[in-house]
Amino acid sequence: MSSPSPILSVLQQTCRALLAIRGDESTVNLATQVARRYDALDADARREFLVWLVDELSPDSAVVAAAIAAYTTSPGPQTAQALGDATEAPRQALFRAINTAPGGTAAVMRMRADCLTAVRDLPALTVVDHDSAHLLTSWFNRGFLELRCIDWQTPAAVLEKLIEYEAVHEIDGWEDLQRRLAADRRCFGFFHPALPGEPLIFIEIALTVGLAGSIQEVLTQAAASADLDPDVDTAVFYSITNCQPGLTGIPLGSMLIKQVTEELQAELPQIETFCTLSPIPGYTQWVEITGGRLSPELQRLVLHGDTPIDDNAREAVLTSCAYYLLHAKRRVLPADPVARFHLRNGARIERINWGGDRSDKGRAESYGMLVNYLYDPDQLADNHISYVNDFVVAHSPAVAELLS
Amino acid sequence: MSSPSPILSVLQQTCRALLAIRGDESTVNLATQVARRYDALDADARREFLVWLVDELSPDSAVVAAAIAAYTTSPGPQTAQALGDATEAPRQALFRAINTAPGGTAAVMRMRADCLTAVRDLPALTVVDHDSAHLLTSWFNRGFLELRCIDWQTPAAVLEKLIEYEAVHEIDGWEDLQRRLAADRRCFGFFHPALPGEPLIFIEIALTVGLAGSIQEVLTQAAASADLDPDVDTAVFYSITNCQPGLTGIPLGSMLIKQVTEELQAELPQIETFCTLSPIPGYTQWVEITGGRLSPELQRLVLHGDTPIDDNAREAVLTSCAYYLLHAKRRVLPADPVARFHLRNGARIERINWGGDRSDKGRAESYGMLVNYLYDPDQLADNHISYVNDFVVAHSPAVAELLS
Amino acid sequence: MSSPSPILSVLQQTCRALLAIRGDESTVNLATQVARRYDALDADARREFLVWLVDELSPDSAVVAAAIAAYTTSPGPQTAQALGDATEAPRQALFRAINTAPGGTAAVMRMRADCLTAVRDLPALTVVDHDSAHLLTSWFNRGFLELRCIDWQTPAAVLEKLIEYEAVHEIDGWEDLQRRLAADRRCFGFFHPALPGEPLIFIEIALTVGLAGSIQEVLTQAAASADLDPDVDTAVFYSITNCQPGLTGIPLGSMLIKQVTEELQAELPQIETFCTLSPIPGYTQWVEITGGRLSPELQRLVLHGDTPIDDNAREAVLTSCAYYLLHAKRRVLPADPVARFHLRNGARIERINWGGDRSDKGRAESYGMLVNYLYDPDQLADNHISYVNDFVVAHSPAVAELLS
Amino acid sequence: MSSPSPILSVLQQTCRALLAIRGDESTVNLATQVARRYDALDADARREFLVWLVDELSPDSAVVAAAIAAYTTSPGPQTAQALGDATEAPRQALFRAINTAPGGTAAVMRMRADCLTAVRDLPALTVVDHDSAHLLTSWFNRGFLELRCIDWQTPAAVLEKLIEYEAVHEIDGWEDLQRRLAADRRCFGFFHPALPGEPLIFIEIALTVGLAGSIQEVLTQAAASADLDPDVDTAVFYSITNCQPGLTGIPLGSMLIKQVTEELQAELPQIETFCTLSPIPGYTQWVEITGGRLSPELQRLVLHGDTPIDDNAREAVLTSCAYYLLHAKRRVLPADPVARFHLRNGARIERINWGGDRSDKGRAESYGMLVNYLYDPDQLADNHISYVNDFVVAHSPAVAELLS
Repeated sequence: MSSPSPILSVLQQTCRALLAIRGDESTVNLATQVARRYDALDADARREFLVWLVDELSPDSAVVAAAIAAYTTSPGPQTAQALGDATEAPRQALFRAINTAPGGTAAVMRMRADCLTAVRDLPALTVVDHDSAHLLTSWFNRGFLELRCIDWQTPAAVLEKLIEYEAVHEIDGWEDLQRRLAADRRCFGFFHPALPGEPLIFIEIALTVGLAGSIQEVLTQAAASADLDPDVDTAVFYSITNCQPGLTGIPLGSMLIKQVTEELQAELPQIETFCTLSPIPGYTQWVEITGGRLSPELQRLVLHGDTPIDDNAREAVLTSCAYYLLHAKRRVLPADPVARFHLRNGARIERINWGGDRSDKGRAESYGMLVNYLYDPDQLADNHISYVNDFVVAHSPAVAELLS
Repeated sequence: MSSPSPILSVLQQTCRALLAIRGDESTVNLATQVARRYDALDADARREFLVWLVDELSPDSAVVAAAIAAYTTSPGPQTAQALGDATEAPRQALFRAINTAPGGTAAVMRMRADCLTAVRDLPALTVVDHDSAHLLTSWFNRGFLELRCIDWQTPAAVLEKLIEYEAVHEIDGWEDLQRRLAADRRCFGFFHPALPGEPLIFIEIALTVGLAGSIQEVLTQAAASADLDPDVDTAVFYSITNCQPGLTGIPLGSMLIKQVTEELQAELPQIETFCTLSPIPGYTQWVEITGGRLSPELQRLVLHGDTPIDDNAREAVLTSCAYYLLHAKRRVLPADPVARFHLRNGARIERINWGGDRSDKGRAESYGMLVNYLYDPDQLADNHISYVNDFVVAHSPAVAELLS
Repeated sequence: MSSPSPILSVLQQTCRALLAIRGDESTVNLATQVARRYDALDADARREFLVWLVDELSPDSAVVAAAIAAYTTSPGPQTAQALGDATEAPRQALFRAINTAPGGTAAVMRMRADCLTAVRDLPALTVVDHDSAHLLTSWFNRGFLELRCIDWQTPAAVLEKLIEYEAVHEIDGWEDLQRRLAADRRCFGFFHPALPGEPLIFIEIALTVGLAGSIQEVLTQAAASADLDPDVDTAVFYSITNCQPGLTGIPLGSMLIKQVTEELQAELPQIETFCTLSPIPGYTQWVEITGGRLSPELQRLVLHGDTPIDDNAREAVLTSCAYYLLHAKRRVLPADPVARFHLRNGARIERINWGGDRSDKGRAESYGMLVNYLYDPDQLADNHISYVNDFVVAHSPAVAELLS
Repeated sequence: MSSPSPILSVLQQTCRALLAIRGDESTVNLATQVARRYDALDADARREFLVWLVDELSPDSAVVAAAIAAYTTSPGPQTAQALGDATEAPRQALFRAINTAPGGTAAVMRMRADCLTAVRDLPALTVVDHDSAHLLTSWFNRGFLELRCIDWQTPAAVLEKLIEYEAVHEIDGWEDLQRRLAADRRCFGFFHPALPGEPLIFIEIALTVGLAGSIQEVLTQAAASADLDPDVDTAVFYSITNCQPGLTGIPLGSMLIKQVTEELQAELPQIETFCTLSPIPGYTQWVEITGGRLSPELQRLVLHGDTPIDDNAREAVLTSCAYYLLHAKRRVLPADPVARFHLRNGARIERINWGGDRSDKGRAESYGMLVNYLYDPDQLADNHISYVNDFVVAHSPAVAELLS
């Protein structure tokens, strides 16, 4: 590494000062400077700073040793707590102090986002990630989040961020966005008081008559009139986007689905079915590696996808995909990350849709198939328990039929 | 203790379930039940519950022992962090889980408030206080607090709480309150998004021409007209009230004074002096114990206060009080708790006011004297540092003169 | 009258200037001065000003004569309109110009309120009242009014006005007000964008199980808990207060009852009965004049009310009161002004309540009786039409029974 | 005209019913139906309806005759007022009744907009225009308008309307709009409580260092950073758009400029110059007709604009344009409509900018020239009075120089 950045030295000095005076009058000023100086660092200096958080702001081994001795002499709740205090890294106090500044929460989130990138090469940074995640989880507690309906009355400054952040099905400008906020659509996001105007995560929903199986249909069908079709009976969660890299791993998604379901039940009692329209990101890769229990011709079809296909072939590929979702595992849990997310929430695999996503991305990931996960409020708790305790993958009779 | 409360058993079961499923779909429901069931307990059962938090939800000694072994074998940031995790009491996870429920933050605050009462007889509860204080400090971080101006446009539901909570100079009904919110008065409070409509702490301010020395004058002088006197040059902080017993020890007061000073500087640039009009709660008690460096007659005067007083006597008592504020110590810091608070914030002792509080309480505490602490924005940082490092008690030349 | 007030001359000059430049850049400034100078006048000078509005700001007779000639020569829509323009008094243009100032609407309202007082002695002012009422009716059009729910979350500055204005059943301070805003009560008011924070009219409602017959019961019964009794089936409009003397005669009351009924139907579908609990202000006076179809003893009873009363006497007085409400007339309409208001709205006389208002006022007006007027949404339109066309006084079978 | 529309008959019947019951319980329902049925008419039927407003809802000639007789017998304020009442067309009462419905104000505005189109062929409709304008002027009184700053925090539903309505310099999508709402731009609009979310008129402003002379520069220069340039000293009003055809002729524009100037003075005291950058819509047309005091070659240049131009020619054309603005008249006032608007407001002609608008429209209207009108707060009142009384066209020394 090159000669140390002069800003970095100043930043480190500021951090030391901030820890020295914590709880007092100048905290906010120093914290503001820490945030500003961190942002002024280049990528290398930021990594160096993060490493310094491990090297200098880890627990003091003499203090830890003394606390261990005290605990060993007289084990009990108080000595255990004192040992806990001794082993809390000073960088936690630093993060808490930074959080007192206006914009401090966002600064800690940026540090964690940088840490998550750097940790791939620098595994020692795991402890920084762990500490920052611990605090952010506490600060982004469900009780502090605000659910907001996002619609055409929302400030443009927020809507602009939806266009920027949407990760699942790209929003192609303001007209596309307006379609997604029309009378037969809904959009909700979580916001936090320390980050006004900044969505943390948002979900896009189509209100349909019956289960939707094609994302292109959802995205391009003509907008409904100003009034909602009275026959609407299904809410399709077709996109969910985490906006903040610094909040990776904090379980906002399942809370959002849960609360949005309650909102929709209250607003539209005629809705009977809550389900997703979800990608199957690992399917073609799995076929590549395992053959996918398909004949060589069908493997070629899935992997290159450039020949016509008959009903038998389609059936075989759907069956292969069902097998993937139910039986392909990473250790004891499903190999597919989207499946893991929804199954853990208590949803079940409801239907696999041929041609559900005809985009390049859809074809590349899963030969254009999409899957509906059903969120049945009456079954969520049971499914969740069976999944986390016994790794049971809940699925509909129709999916079971495919595999029989 | 009598046979265990049946609600208590159910509550303990619910807590165990909540910890078992943490992070998942049913958390909010279980957390809501925990809060509700705790509130249904009587005082004895609550104490029993708090003891149970020590007995059952302290760190597992086998896990701690293993983590100690791992750390001892290979000391370093990661094993230290693992040891920290092992020594974190599960009751912290419980408090975090409760905090996910609507009203969960308030429930944790009620538990801590009960704990602070119970810990006087049950010192083992210290660890519960410590853990809950740790979390509440994080949640009530400056960055998450909202400063609000409280005036006659504020909802009655909030104003009612001011009347209820005011701890320093009782508010005698709505007319008295309206006087305190008139054009020449200001009131500010901190609020938190998880406790809407609930002030955490509030401060009352009189805008005056010159330093005010008498609280009765501040409280009873006729209200100014709708417009502020253009000669106003001083902001007198005459009352500051912590509203939430569950937040005891979390340093909201100094943050509030700091931010309110900034607000007033922005709104009213003509204000040159920011000071308090503060009680001296320990003075007469100190005279009782030490004699207060006063002749026996003057001691009787201070302690019984029923004879007339001449100028010399007055001077002698003021000098005694100045000595008390500057030189009476509890270990190295001033004996007077209000003095400790303001001096730590960087204020200085500006003026002692004879007859500043002629109420019974004022006479009982400090023979009716009040003190102004001066918040000079240019000196706060220096004073603070001299105080915390060298225990220097900043004071005005006039106060020094009394003692010379 | 004494020598003219110098402010009055200045005011008149300002009015002339305002009319000369109307529609242009200085209008707002001049209009602000007119409002301010009017407020600076004493009562005599205000009357003089109002008379001046008749003397100087009435239509120009030469212009009117020319417009009459043009119309007579060629009668038609255009010459009629030109004649209308010629006969519009310049004071209307003045009122419209004043209305452009901040606070201008309130100034016109104060002028009209003064005019309504003065017109009793100065019938020539009728034309001023007529012109100002014409404009205010247009400005306080239903489409511009905002219905607001008033509760304990409402700013104290608004609630204070309720205490000040309540005209039917005096509000005895903040505790009494809080009772009237509890979970089993509702309060709504109309507000106007030009008078922010100023209720124009408000209505107080008790949510009860069955029809309430006693105002003392409504006002003093212990407050319900935080939740509404699920058996509530009736909304009792027990007080309706016009707050603005300047809006006398503008029919805000019937619009308010109509819209509040719709709000309550939407919020609380279990409410089946909407009715009032109303005074009978003219009853004892009518007995005084007519004998009230009562025996001399019963007349004494009603007029002095100081002896015990048996069931027969009670029945006779109720019958007399029913006769008064149905048959005592001022020209073709009921003599009782409250009855006229509710019957015109389409309500019917539902029940007369013995001992409904045991206050001094209640005993003085109607020997303590109150009457319920029923607002049955299904009958309002028919009742209204029968009343305004055929003067039919709608009433319940029970009231008919009394008279049979 | 074809056989009458059946909806029209129903509409006419509804109007009659609405007038018959005015002031009462069913007004809002009937008014809602009138608005809905009017919207259901096609263009022909709407014209027929407007004609019917003249034919059936004009003053009753017998009533007018009686009121004339009464006035003639005894002329005075009261008989004049009665005559005014008699000559008020019942269509005014109809418009006021429609205005009670939700959306009623908008309905009256749509009727007036249709009337303004139809009156070109049907001059008899003038009286309908006159009556509706009279009422709308009263309802859209300055006192009832709300000035709102429009920026990137404004709901998309409002911003979308700016894109749709902008009449002077078209907004080319959301990116263009965002540029116009950046840190060095301002946008303000008037809104009315009866038309929430609907701008009535809006103005776009560039904050610049020195007077801007080119609209292309204003619209396309790179956006400033998040902070405003501290050297900014000029506010350039470069576009003002009336959004509501139904409010044609109601003087919102001058009020908007006046109030926006006050807002900017308060927010940005460093701004010294308030001026417009305005089109000269009638210049080339005037050259066409009059020759523009130019040589034949220069006339060709202005009218076809396709040859290069030297400094002398440029000077001659600027002089011709100055002559046009100052001396070309329609009766006694300037021929140019934009000049009339700003001069009446008290502005003066400050500078003529060669190449100020290089768009096709700019070249077609005024050979690409634009003019700055200066709004000097100290001169507005004087300029206005000289203009309206003596038709004086205020202008800068530089413009005078051109003509000397």
